[in-house]
Amino acid sequence: MSMLKDPSSKYRPFTPIAIPDRTWPDKVIDKAPIWLSTDLRDGNQSLIEPMDAEKKMRFFKCLVQVGLKEIEVGFPSASQTDFDFVRELIEGGHIPDDVTIQVLTQARDDLIERTFESLKGAKKAIVHYYNACAPSFRKIVFNQDKAGVKAIAVAAGKTIKRLAATQPDTQWGFEYSPEVFSSTETDFAVEVCNAVIAVFQPTPANPLILNLPATIECATPNNYADQIEWFGRHIDTRDSVLISVHTHNDRGTGVAATELAVMAGADRVEGCLFGNGERTGNVCLVTVALNLYTQGVNPQLDFSDIDAVRKVVEDCNQIPVHPRHPYAGDLVHTAFSGSHQDAIRKGFTQQQADAVWEVPYLPIDPADIGRDYEAVIRVNSQSGKGGITFLLEQEYGINLPRRMQIEFSQVVQKETDRLGLEMTAAQIYKLLDSEYLQATTPYALKGHRLQEENGTSAVDVEIVSEGETLHWRGIGKGPLEALVAGLPVAVEIMDYSEHAIGAGTNAKAAAYIELRVNGGRALHGVGIDENLTTASFRALFSALNRALGQAAEQAA
Amino acid sequence: MSMLKDPSSKYRPFTPIAIPDRTWPDKVIDKAPIWLSTDLRDGNQSLIEPMDAEKKMRFFKCLVQVGLKEIEVGFPSASQTDFDFVRELIEGGHIPDDVTIQVLTQARDDLIERTFESLKGAKKAIVHYYNACAPSFRKIVFNQDKAGVKAIAVAAGKTIKRLAATQPDTQWGFEYSPEVFSSTETDFAVEVCNAVIAVFQPTPANPLILNLPATIECATPNNYADQIEWFGRHIDTRDSVLISVHTHNDRGTGVAATELAVMAGADRVEGCLFGNGERTGNVCLVTVALNLYTQGVNPQLDFSDIDAVRKVVEDCNQIPVHPRHPYAGDLVHTAFSGSHQDAIRKGFTQQQADAVWEVPYLPIDPADIGRDYEAVIRVNSQSGKGGITFLLEQEYGINLPRRMQIEFSQVVQKETDRLGLEMTAAQIYKLLDSEYLQATTPYALKGHRLQEENGTSAVDVEIVSEGETLHWRGIGKGPLEALVAGLPVAVEIMDYSEHAIGAGTNAKAAAYIELRVNGGRALHGVGIDENLTTASFRALFSALNRALGQAAEQAA
Repeated sequence: MSMLKDPSSKYRPFTPIAIPDRTWPDKVIDKAPIWLSTDLRDGNQSLIEPMDAEKKMRFFKCLVQVGLKEIEVGFPSASQTDFDFVRELIEGGHIPDDVTIQVLTQARDDLIERTFESLKGAKKAIVHYYNACAPSFRKIVFNQDKAGVKAIAVAAGKTIKRLAATQPDTQWGFEYSPEVFSSTETDFAVEVCNAVIAVFQPTPANPLILNLPATIECATPNNYADQIEWFGRHIDTRDSVLISVHTHNDRGTGVAATELAVMAGADRVEGCLFGNGERTGNVCLVTVALNLYTQGVNPQLDFSDIDAVRKVVEDCNQIPVHPRHPYAGDLVHTAFSGSHQDAIRKGFTQQQADAVWEVPYLPIDPADIGRDYEAVIRVNSQSGKGGITFLLEQEYGINLPRRMQIEFSQVVQKETDRLGLEMTAAQIYKLLDSEYLQATTPYALKGHRLQEENGTSAVDVEIVSEGETLHWRGIGKGPLEALVAGLPVAVEIMDYSEHAIGAGTNAKAAAYIELRVNGGRALHGVGIDENLTTASFRALFSALNRALGQAAEQAA
Repeated sequence: MSMLKDPSSKYRPFTPIAIPDRTWPDKVIDKAPIWLSTDLRDGNQSLIEPMDAEKKMRFFKCLVQVGLKEIEVGFPSASQTDFDFVRELIEGGHIPDDVTIQVLTQARDDLIERTFESLKGAKKAIVHYYNACAPSFRKIVFNQDKAGVKAIAVAAGKTIKRLAATQPDTQWGFEYSPEVFSSTETDFAVEVCNAVIAVFQPTPANPLILNLPATIECATPNNYADQIEWFGRHIDTRDSVLISVHTHNDRGTGVAATELAVMAGADRVEGCLFGNGERTGNVCLVTVALNLYTQGVNPQLDFSDIDAVRKVVEDCNQIPVHPRHPYAGDLVHTAFSGSHQDAIRKGFTQQQADAVWEVPYLPIDPADIGRDYEAVIRVNSQSGKGGITFLLEQEYGINLPRRMQIEFSQVVQKETDRLGLEMTAAQIYKLLDSEYLQATTPYALKGHRLQEENGTSAVDVEIVSEGETLHWRGIGKGPLEALVAGLPVAVEIMDYSEHAIGAGTNAKAAAYIELRVNGGRALHGVGIDENLTTASFRALFSALNRALGQAAEQAA
């Protein structure tokens, strides 16, 4: 292995600004900031595969449902897809009255004109423009001096103000970003922003948004808070501007930078759900909002069904939420060690319904965000080689997906408690078989027909239920979607995966489905068959039958 | 969707401590702290499938290679696996002279005795003990008052001191953790720690480690720094103790809490590589170390080949590093937007070899950590539906793994630059075919024989190279490992995945391998065949031939 080079001559440390009388370290956040989601803009532009119109609309509706009132929906002057999407939002009447869309544009007249064109007919809109102000960008990218940078910001502001006046039926908001603010001389950022204020002449009733991006995170987060507090002290007409923060996560401290900046006076927070965005991502709005929640502050965003939100975001972004993501990760409401499980159990026992939340190791009640606490056991912690997952993989070639590992460990727990001893691989497989593969009531799948043409699948399934033979038929974009369409029950597939068992002509497919039935708790199903379609259908019925069985038990 | 409940009566906000004369916000970190990796303890205990002895040894050696000098290797009194692993480290002579192992124990005499038993014959060792001090744990979990908690810490300290004296050939270090420190009354934590100091009577030459865990992160990170600074002011014999911090990431600010705490006086940092650990994980040591690096401070940890470290950690933990992880994520040295790519290109052009690093959007030179900067293009940014990945998936059922998407987009880029126009799905597939599937020189795979028994695979491959037929034979734990063992070239498989194309009897397998040849840059290969083994072998030769071809080009 080569050695890491000595960084001392290659990297320049950040130079802190002098603000010894800073007040933010004594502040506590006691109300929610104004939120702006840039998932459809900063988030979308950083995907290998940007969203198509359908995904964008799905994401937009999810954001509305979560309670976002300001949503940056694109960069219409740079992308026809974005332009068309803005038109569809406006012409299709998809924007609720209490939601304001925002669009981004560079500080160039032709692009600004195109931006206003995209917004024709909008009831409310924020035009967000920017130019880079940091020294390295002035020098390397634009070859501009300070005066030139300021002139660009002023000229574009005038164009925006003029064009807005030509579309008077829209209620306009304006946002200016001195781009790469965190690496810009703070006094120069104030100078540029004051010049922009002079153009727009905002009032307390019609404030100008000044957004101060940590485009690239470049120092410990206290420095960003210092910059924000200093900026707030020196900007003109502080009561007529909203200070907005927009942090990235290059140093893994984007959440902290946002929180300390709010303590330092920021009024508004831009970010993405689950921290999507350029490179290391924007700040995660879910984390900042739920951090407020666990401090008794209503975030004004609704994550009471966090897994439903997560599913939309993962589907649209095609980027997984990390298993250790605060609040939404697969592993964060899970305890592995016996002592943690014991403490949590005691906490739940003593927790009164209306009392302050005080369960050890659980900073949030999982039920508040639509989740469960789950304890995971090791079948044989002594050997470290006897775990459920390991045994099933080694002996049977079965790789359970992570959330199913957690679910199945609880099934195994019940059985080991009953038996009072460790289980062998064969016993564990038998349990998997009886719990999942044999979950054939009320609906036993007897066979299916599948026809596919032009990307459309038509499925007929033959089901035996209580001695009766049933035929269900559905159509969809794939076999599973078609099957779901044909079911007499409302189900939602939360996750699906499959893998081969064995190789060559003897190979079988194992399919796993995580399913919500009638909006209930997500449960898994498993199907194994030589035919992949059959395996996936079996998995679906396995999950469906288990969910209906558990619902019946609870009702009884 | 249900509404998020009002949190104001359910959650109690954190009560900050009063320290208006705090000094940490004016500090800058200018040297590396002492590092302690708890990957093999806190990290390992939070895995669904804890590591077996082989993985633990592999991880330990990786930590040594990275430069960790203090490594927590387990909880030997609680786990026979851990006990055996400590014995193997000591008896097998695996611990370099400049590395100190650390083990954790609860503050109970029987467990402490067992702990010392595990350490017999160690040259150097730190015994780390803890008991929970926070009010909720005193009340809910242990039913103890303050005096009782302090008495436990003192009694256990005495036992440890006594037992250490009976094994005088070991150079002992001692560490005490007032567990759940961040939720404990800070003055009470000082009181308990002062009582522990009185037991051990440390000196500046033999300091006691006082580790102050944010076991559950419960407030904005400035509060943790306040607690650390206050603690440092009030603890006895400050010059004879090392203040150690151990943060978790429940609020997504574990890195910030550690950094601000170091500014507040902490000497030592405990954490895990890539942020593994209970629930949301421990602080990520990679991020904290490389954050120092980009500020010109030598972290004293070597991540010059970060992908090699990542591979060991992912293999052992079976938890992926998130694509947006700072420094190590798949997407963090990648630019998608044209304006970013343009700025980065200008930065690279102007960057002098010995000058301060100043490339826009890249806070670290990817080369310093063994990586490349990569620009990703969209084949057709207008439609959003014409991306490379989308077309290959829709038209050919091919799902490229993420890093290969990035690699292949550059192949496509070259071709679109050459052609000067957009590519159709068929053209893209043809490029994939010629670049990957037809990469059959110097080694064309003609056939293979595979025999497997008792988990061991023996592989014979027939190769044609420059008209000559060659036979290579290798043995390993699986077909690919066997093949690698039989190659006349040193290769390392960085990633492997496969999926079915189509279903039923017509299904084929697509296999993808990311390979390093002779320690060079990782490159991908692709193989498609009806037989899964054949597909994977083809993928390996595809990658191997591409790497050898590129090496030959560079040499020419």
